[in-house]
Amino acid sequence: MAGYGNLGRGAEAAVMRRDDMELAAIVSRRPGIATASPDVPVVTYDGIASLAGSVDVCLLCGGSANDLWDQGPRVAALFNTVDSFDTHAKIPEYFEIMDKAASGGGHVSILSAGWDPGVFSLMRLYCGAFLPEGRSETFWGRGVSQGHSDAIRRVPGVLRAVQYTVPLDDAVKAARSGGGELEACQKHRRECFVVPAPGADTAQIENAIKTMPHYFAGYDVTVTFIGEDEFIENHRAMPHGGFVIRNGQTADGSRSSLEFSLNLGSNPFFTSSVMVSCALAAHRLSRAGRTGAATLFDIPPALLSPTPEHKQRSDIL
Amino acid sequence: MAGYGNLGRGAEAAVMRRDDMELAAIVSRRPGIATASPDVPVVTYDGIASLAGSVDVCLLCGGSANDLWDQGPRVAALFNTVDSFDTHAKIPEYFEIMDKAASGGGHVSILSAGWDPGVFSLMRLYCGAFLPEGRSETFWGRGVSQGHSDAIRRVPGVLRAVQYTVPLDDAVKAARSGGGELEACQKHRRECFVVPAPGADTAQIENAIKTMPHYFAGYDVTVTFIGEDEFIENHRAMPHGGFVIRNGQTADGSRSSLEFSLNLGSNPFFTSSVMVSCALAAHRLSRAGRTGAATLFDIPPALLSPTPEHKQRSDIL
Repeated sequence: MAGYGNLGRGAEAAVMRRDDMELAAIVSRRPGIATASPDVPVVTYDGIASLAGSVDVCLLCGGSANDLWDQGPRVAALFNTVDSFDTHAKIPEYFEIMDKAASGGGHVSILSAGWDPGVFSLMRLYCGAFLPEGRSETFWGRGVSQGHSDAIRRVPGVLRAVQYTVPLDDAVKAARSGGGELEACQKHRRECFVVPAPGADTAQIENAIKTMPHYFAGYDVTVTFIGEDEFIENHRAMPHGGFVIRNGQTADGSRSSLEFSLNLGSNPFFTSSVMVSCALAAHRLSRAGRTGAATLFDIPPALLSPTPEHKQRSDIL
Repeated sequence: MAGYGNLGRGAEAAVMRRDDMELAAIVSRRPGIATASPDVPVVTYDGIASLAGSVDVCLLCGGSANDLWDQGPRVAALFNTVDSFDTHAKIPEYFEIMDKAASGGGHVSILSAGWDPGVFSLMRLYCGAFLPEGRSETFWGRGVSQGHSDAIRRVPGVLRAVQYTVPLDDAVKAARSGGGELEACQKHRRECFVVPAPGADTAQIENAIKTMPHYFAGYDVTVTFIGEDEFIENHRAMPHGGFVIRNGQTADGSRSSLEFSLNLGSNPFFTSSVMVSCALAAHRLSRAGRTGAATLFDIPPALLSPTPEHKQRSDIL
């Protein structure tokens, strides 16, 4: 696995708890890093070529904004890979780059394996296929948005901040009963908890947040100022979740609705758990001769499960 | 398509509403049957061999108890097929039979494509793969159980009957919060609406239902006697639905839960809609050279959707 932030620590722990996988090495830019697995060697990116041939899959645990654009194709040339690339708008572009690198090296690269994109994407695809006359709505939250929390931390006078995205009950109800299409700002509100620097002008901070374009302007935003102790006590977990709701009609004109919801105690630990299940699939696809980039849309579900196929049919189907 | 009961009428209507499919023929044991598609020829099982080569996929709309054991392998030798075989305990046996017939004919047969088995099976598999340390619970209802309704109709003195399976709120709550494993009778109650024959002993009917082994004994059962008019007015629709709930923990020990729910206005029309989406996949798998039996576990989700793959990645992922 490559990268040792929240996602990397999650992947390490998830692999350690499986008896069908072994953690061969942790790739990091920081060669002396202390990990939770002292027996697993830490290697730098310059040293990864020496691992080729002895590693089945490399979990890419870097971020989508910068890390993966560089690490992804480099590593995909050497190993099968799995990542959780999550910048929706740039998936087609990233897919092309990874497809070229993985195909060139004769490997499989599974992209965007997380909960959204990932599990929620599967739900949108299946629900659309099974109930083609209808509409899907996705809601996120209640949970921590890392991007919005980062944006608040860039406001002058802010020491610490966390932003919870919260679905609006009325919008969820409307989606369940087949109401009209809604914009993201009509479906969610944003709760911000901010630790101000001593002497900072909190009115000014609040205004800077609420008027911030792209991130907060147009949304129902609440800003609550709290002390450092309360922040540490109550706002350091990274829960998240959300819904995918499909509402439509079958060919007799009767209404049907399908709904999937997630409630995650830890966003990065669940994301890495999805990645680890995709590592099994990447290995299996590769052994079957497949090369190039793939997403969860391309993976037969059976390949994600360690349960033998005949037992899947008798016990799970 | 073969079979023209509720499921067959659903499949006919669903195919008619798609612009990427054409209904070539309706296969029925009754050659003179009136269908909703007067332009589509009705052929008997003896005549189906003449359709081989001109039909991409045959939807098998017969029942699991009798029809499919005979029709399935006969038709699978001639065409790619999709069915909704739903006797869970016999899936492995049916799979072997269909695998042999389809492989022998060089075709693909997709089995058990409905909502359970089918959509719920997918949820159980994915949720188990993504959150491996946890437990899944499936609840059915509120909806009409055809098997239980049939069982009541066999009680002497019963003219008409319908049985609704209803999940118990406390059991659903327990599953959501990770409570212990429950038997089906601890998760559901059964509501029966019965039209008695004139002069029938309703106390005796009620007792016969409540003590019926396998079907009702051990369950919380209510029996309500109603008149024929009320039955026709309120109890002829075939709604169904249910939940799959997965509760578990990620490698950091924090709790996560995943939940999928279905609310179907018409059980047979939704089932046939799932079958039709699988027809597209069967055709695509067959063109890619795949032969033999398969279930939704073996189908890359992308193949179920008429949306081109690059648009799936840009718009749905």
